[in-house]
Amino acid sequence: MTTAVLNESKMKTFEEIESAVRSYSRGWPTVFDKAKGYKLWDTDGREYIDFFAGAGTLNYGHNDDAMQEKIINYIKNDGIIHSLDMGTTPRKEFLEQFKEIILKPRNLDYKIMFPGPTGTNTVESALKIARKVTGRDTVISFTNAFHGMTIGSLSVTGNSFKRHGAGVPLHHTVSMPFDDYVEDQDSIAYLERFLEDSGSGVALPAAIILETVQGEGGINAARMEWLKKVDAICKRWDILLIIDDVQAGNGRTGTFFSFEPAGINPDVVCLSKSIGGFGLPMAITLIKPEYDQWGPGEHNGTFRGNNLAFIAATEALSNWKTDDFSKDIQAKGDLLKTAVNKLIEKYPVLKGEARGRGLMQGIAVHVDGLAEAICAEAFKRGLIVETSGPADEVVKFLPPLVIDQEGLEKGLEILEDSIKYVTNK
Amino acid sequence: MTTAVLNESKMKTFEEIESAVRSYSRGWPTVFDKAKGYKLWDTDGREYIDFFAGAGTLNYGHNDDAMQEKIINYIKNDGIIHSLDMGTTPRKEFLEQFKEIILKPRNLDYKIMFPGPTGTNTVESALKIARKVTGRDTVISFTNAFHGMTIGSLSVTGNSFKRHGAGVPLHHTVSMPFDDYVEDQDSIAYLERFLEDSGSGVALPAAIILETVQGEGGINAARMEWLKKVDAICKRWDILLIIDDVQAGNGRTGTFFSFEPAGINPDVVCLSKSIGGFGLPMAITLIKPEYDQWGPGEHNGTFRGNNLAFIAATEALSNWKTDDFSKDIQAKGDLLKTAVNKLIEKYPVLKGEARGRGLMQGIAVHVDGLAEAICAEAFKRGLIVETSGPADEVVKFLPPLVIDQEGLEKGLEILEDSIKYVTNK
Amino acid sequence: MTTAVLNESKMKTFEEIESAVRSYSRGWPTVFDKAKGYKLWDTDGREYIDFFAGAGTLNYGHNDDAMQEKIINYIKNDGIIHSLDMGTTPRKEFLEQFKEIILKPRNLDYKIMFPGPTGTNTVESALKIARKVTGRDTVISFTNAFHGMTIGSLSVTGNSFKRHGAGVPLHHTVSMPFDDYVEDQDSIAYLERFLEDSGSGVALPAAIILETVQGEGGINAARMEWLKKVDAICKRWDILLIIDDVQAGNGRTGTFFSFEPAGINPDVVCLSKSIGGFGLPMAITLIKPEYDQWGPGEHNGTFRGNNLAFIAATEALSNWKTDDFSKDIQAKGDLLKTAVNKLIEKYPVLKGEARGRGLMQGIAVHVDGLAEAICAEAFKRGLIVETSGPADEVVKFLPPLVIDQEGLEKGLEILEDSIKYVTNK
Amino acid sequence: MTTAVLNESKMKTFEEIESAVRSYSRGWPTVFDKAKGYKLWDTDGREYIDFFAGAGTLNYGHNDDAMQEKIINYIKNDGIIHSLDMGTTPRKEFLEQFKEIILKPRNLDYKIMFPGPTGTNTVESALKIARKVTGRDTVISFTNAFHGMTIGSLSVTGNSFKRHGAGVPLHHTVSMPFDDYVEDQDSIAYLERFLEDSGSGVALPAAIILETVQGEGGINAARMEWLKKVDAICKRWDILLIIDDVQAGNGRTGTFFSFEPAGINPDVVCLSKSIGGFGLPMAITLIKPEYDQWGPGEHNGTFRGNNLAFIAATEALSNWKTDDFSKDIQAKGDLLKTAVNKLIEKYPVLKGEARGRGLMQGIAVHVDGLAEAICAEAFKRGLIVETSGPADEVVKFLPPLVIDQEGLEKGLEILEDSIKYVTNK
Repeated sequence: MTTAVLNESKMKTFEEIESAVRSYSRGWPTVFDKAKGYKLWDTDGREYIDFFAGAGTLNYGHNDDAMQEKIINYIKNDGIIHSLDMGTTPRKEFLEQFKEIILKPRNLDYKIMFPGPTGTNTVESALKIARKVTGRDTVISFTNAFHGMTIGSLSVTGNSFKRHGAGVPLHHTVSMPFDDYVEDQDSIAYLERFLEDSGSGVALPAAIILETVQGEGGINAARMEWLKKVDAICKRWDILLIIDDVQAGNGRTGTFFSFEPAGINPDVVCLSKSIGGFGLPMAITLIKPEYDQWGPGEHNGTFRGNNLAFIAATEALSNWKTDDFSKDIQAKGDLLKTAVNKLIEKYPVLKGEARGRGLMQGIAVHVDGLAEAICAEAFKRGLIVETSGPADEVVKFLPPLVIDQEGLEKGLEILEDSIKYVTNK
Repeated sequence: MTTAVLNESKMKTFEEIESAVRSYSRGWPTVFDKAKGYKLWDTDGREYIDFFAGAGTLNYGHNDDAMQEKIINYIKNDGIIHSLDMGTTPRKEFLEQFKEIILKPRNLDYKIMFPGPTGTNTVESALKIARKVTGRDTVISFTNAFHGMTIGSLSVTGNSFKRHGAGVPLHHTVSMPFDDYVEDQDSIAYLERFLEDSGSGVALPAAIILETVQGEGGINAARMEWLKKVDAICKRWDILLIIDDVQAGNGRTGTFFSFEPAGINPDVVCLSKSIGGFGLPMAITLIKPEYDQWGPGEHNGTFRGNNLAFIAATEALSNWKTDDFSKDIQAKGDLLKTAVNKLIEKYPVLKGEARGRGLMQGIAVHVDGLAEAICAEAFKRGLIVETSGPADEVVKFLPPLVIDQEGLEKGLEILEDSIKYVTNK
Repeated sequence: MTTAVLNESKMKTFEEIESAVRSYSRGWPTVFDKAKGYKLWDTDGREYIDFFAGAGTLNYGHNDDAMQEKIINYIKNDGIIHSLDMGTTPRKEFLEQFKEIILKPRNLDYKIMFPGPTGTNTVESALKIARKVTGRDTVISFTNAFHGMTIGSLSVTGNSFKRHGAGVPLHHTVSMPFDDYVEDQDSIAYLERFLEDSGSGVALPAAIILETVQGEGGINAARMEWLKKVDAICKRWDILLIIDDVQAGNGRTGTFFSFEPAGINPDVVCLSKSIGGFGLPMAITLIKPEYDQWGPGEHNGTFRGNNLAFIAATEALSNWKTDDFSKDIQAKGDLLKTAVNKLIEKYPVLKGEARGRGLMQGIAVHVDGLAEAICAEAFKRGLIVETSGPADEVVKFLPPLVIDQEGLEKGLEILEDSIKYVTNK
Repeated sequence: MTTAVLNESKMKTFEEIESAVRSYSRGWPTVFDKAKGYKLWDTDGREYIDFFAGAGTLNYGHNDDAMQEKIINYIKNDGIIHSLDMGTTPRKEFLEQFKEIILKPRNLDYKIMFPGPTGTNTVESALKIARKVTGRDTVISFTNAFHGMTIGSLSVTGNSFKRHGAGVPLHHTVSMPFDDYVEDQDSIAYLERFLEDSGSGVALPAAIILETVQGEGGINAARMEWLKKVDAICKRWDILLIIDDVQAGNGRTGTFFSFEPAGINPDVVCLSKSIGGFGLPMAITLIKPEYDQWGPGEHNGTFRGNNLAFIAATEALSNWKTDDFSKDIQAKGDLLKTAVNKLIEKYPVLKGEARGRGLMQGIAVHVDGLAEAICAEAFKRGLIVETSGPADEVVKFLPPLVIDQEGLEKGLEILEDSIKYVTNK
């Protein structure tokens, strides 16, 4: 009996009952059961190394011991689980610790908003407040941006398949070229010209929204110099700068916020995914106090008070009390960068191009369908790794930040085996 | 030292660090700590009876023993927590049980979509699929509808304060009068005329979306006859009928789906809030198989695989294996209705009007500010109850469905005391 | 040789060279050559009585002697023909005479704007200024309204075929039921309820725009009482009232402005069609001085200075120096009403319903296709008369206001013959 | 008594009765009375040389003798003046002559649509048909484009003041950089990249619309090479190419259509302004037969049948029977170019830059306010010349094409005197 047949019967429930919209269960056709650290196991007991980390949600790995313990104790004590935006003990502690551990040492002053527990919720709230504060409606986003799937966030997302899914035209946004978008062309010069020319057809925007490293868009990392220029443009024209750090934040690139090395101070920051520490739904929007002009309840949502997430989130923050975690990520990022470059050099058939920074890296494979084939093969060999980019052309590496050197090397080994196998066929 | 001062210092963290958008922590200025069944306790040990149930998220009460146990065991066994839409054991079990316990006995055939874990996510997904399937862009919603806070859902929401918060005009939607909206006027006649007249200015819509009982809009319960007529209109013009059962579903009105007594079979159903059983973020969209025309990943989201929620959700479904739960809710609903009518009669100063059905009821208080005053007083006396309606004019009763008669009576007693106190001042 | 064949060769140029969008040359397949008063002649010398008047553009009849003379003299003297919005003698005279003859005696105080020479231009300018002045974006229009074919005007037009032609969804507008739209329902009660309920989903609009008699929409004449109520609603909520008097104005209903009998004083009035007197393109927008908040050139257009039209327009105004013209129109309107009622009574097969007022009347024929058949037959018999209404179900009578009793009777005779012929077939 | 006071009393009517939107009567505060060829006279008998030509509407000069005669005869004979899109003799002759004289010799095959008599009408019709034919909604326009003031045309117009006047956000359009928009950047590379990248955020458009020489936008003339590349892009992606030749067409740049030297064959062409020959409102839309997919009356308008304009238009076409007119324009264009370059060289204080081609030229004056000062002084000295560009920084030369060398030299002399005077102050 072949694996395919086995998988088929294993996946029957999903195929028959779940909507055709499901996607990951197609590429990884198995039933996952357990997970710890950087490993997962399926119901057949097969082990997988995780180079995916829940699309950046599991920066602290699966089932961190301390988080498990705190969550279990809280439940055992009948701690309040669901609380909208009522005051609760875990919410209070998270607020205090986030301010103390994250904001203060970075000289950042933000009000913390709980906008609903998903990435698209924090983005929608960021767009709303920027429009309210400025009284303007246009938002500038960038080519290959991904900000979410609800209509507001989708409007600032580049992917045409996902935009088309809206079923309605998406408005109030202008797409500008991201750093290094067109060869030999200066995307900042374009952006500036459009803004300074009153005849450009582009209105003065409420905000510019960007990811410093575009995760879904193909692991495109903006240069710090480019980020500084965008920041300067925002200041010159009184435009709010929104950094969507949903995927690149929470230490993914080596610092808590991905924009720290640029030395900029965005007006609004969106965090979700790993902010909840344990993989539980949670999101926050950071807003400079002068722009926190919400009326009570002007943006709300049922799941703004996920107390189990608050508990894990607070525990996760403890990683940031010293510089050690940051240095460790950067060291592993360097190791990964070296490995990536070596692979590209060794396998010219990939027409590979290194992308990204920190533990958010990838290889753009400029051969149609090859990136997908590599990831499919890697899955069979026990490595969870997915593609990104408009044509799924980038093999994306997002291991948990807590992965050890052994795990990293073992994953890279499987990757190389998969490349070899797929390119030799 | 007064309570106000105490509360002030207690709430300091929220006031200073959290965004001005927070709302419930203003009306109920305390820090909640524990909860069980229909009761909550704050950090001072004060006890509260819950007539709010997390805005309809805690139909099965706080910290149900069986759910607690299953969740704790799962965590202890390093069960996979976060899984996007990968196959996992809890997801598989939920799918199978939902089909078996809920769909089959009701002769309903739906594909189940996990659209992201919040109400607004399921609504956005419903609007998208309706537009895709029909190739039309307009959606008809109703006056005083509430469907969520992201731009797509907000477009079909009536509340002007919340709509204004969008910061952009909201399009592709037409607001029609809900049942009994204008005195002595027939809202169905109006709706039909707009659809049958090609000069009406209202395009043939992709969908009609509605709540059978409008929760946020003022506990306006549509008559079954009205629902049947809307359903017939949808069939006549090939319009998809979307029932947003986020608040009224999951047994709130006495049957699992709120539309069951009308004998209709909607094309798309949105569920969230209590579907997760335990208060953890979860949502599903039910789509008739012939309309499940999604491409893989056409709508996605990071938190579609909240396995702790799936475990509690599956446990919650066990309540529906027999009719007993349904009958019990209806009996308590009758008790509540009797009490409500008595209060209205006894306190004519309220200019009260009974609203709602099942355990989703309210008193519309036609005196400015009085409903809010009653709820504020009730909080001081240990009852959690909130207002709804466009002018916060309705005192809304949403006790957990598992409340016992004693709890219901005790809550009503506090309510009456609050009414007496507030109207005597 | 049949007429059809003759017509075919006659119409060859139009069929072969002109776009498929042409419409009138299909219903009236001949080449018109000359026209005088209420008569037209084609190139074959056939005479036609005009019950159409250029869709209300030729209220003063074809080729009025005095207008002809003034225009010819002006051209002969090398008078400036095209002048954008530069000062010219004919523009100056028109402004002065319009103020003196039309505005002053009616106690109306308006600034006069030249918005481009067509109906849709004046409507677009009216919508713009209302939105600018109020800072709101929504405009309420009515079912079966027709305001023009450019995107702004089309947004407030009801006809689905024409709206669909936009190729984009039309926004920022809400369609409300016109007077007597749904049997036994009170359209004012609906409108008021939507405005007073902050949860209705309809934003406070910038303006309400309406035709007092809907020409294209089926000769639906609003009652004066209804107009007064709409006016009161506008005043109550500080909404601008825009009367589109493009077709119903210029005396068509018996008074210069169609709203005069209602005793209301709209904030903005749109005039075009017969304002130019002679059939030459011209339009004006009347704006209350306090709302004339345009910046110079904020709305412009190449043909705002059609001096030949200004000359004819000024000459046309001389008709309004006394009440005589008005009384004469009303008398002919009564005569027409009597005739219409007689026809309806005499030919029950029509299932006819009398519509309109003044010299803007019609018969709604509630038998599919019959109205069109009558008009086609009338053309063959020498009467130019067209249909209107969402299903082309209304035979519309718009004779030049200067028609004499003989012309009116002769036209009605042909009409009756056509009805007889068509219903007897 | 000063000129200012005189003008004031002369302009009283316009100031008091006309809307604040008036603009040309501010810059040229006099009352124009007569005009012939390239000259105008005001009511005081002052003579002006016309370097403006009704913003490109009077290419054939004022009051052409032959046109005058034909129009007068037509009126005298009671020719039908207003005819919507009914067949008439002048319409027939225009259609036939346009095909014979203009289309055939250029190997162009278009259906001719009469969309309403103004530039914005033809643009709105072009956008509609492109969207209908392709089923797409986005239209790409260019920076500093000007296409008209109704909402559809305004959406593809760049000027922020005019866009803002809409009072609503303008949608379904994307503004791309025109030729040579950003120094040292390749606008074609940018456009292509956005189209070929499915993640760019820019949807495949229905059409690209452009002026080959942007009149209002600052006399920016695209290179033929650039036009060819845009044309190739349109072909590659099945995008309709719409050339808005309202201002640059009708011989303005030296050929009947401005795009002829590029050797391209646009899918849709918009003509207005000088198409009417005499300054009377008229517009046509040329549509390739395969795209002429209108339903009858899908776009309409009251003034599509301005027969006086048809008569003058047909007469104007006779200029194009041979190449002579074209050669003559080009010769005068060369003369003008030489003069412009000389002025720029002689007056470095202007920081001048030559713009345009044919008889559509200008000097961009890179000193704030100087261009306007020069035009104001020129008016005082008897030359009608206006500015264009987003900051009114370009002195624009649009003399009638029939101007003789003497007129051209006299106008340039006044211009130089004005420059001298203004820059010496």
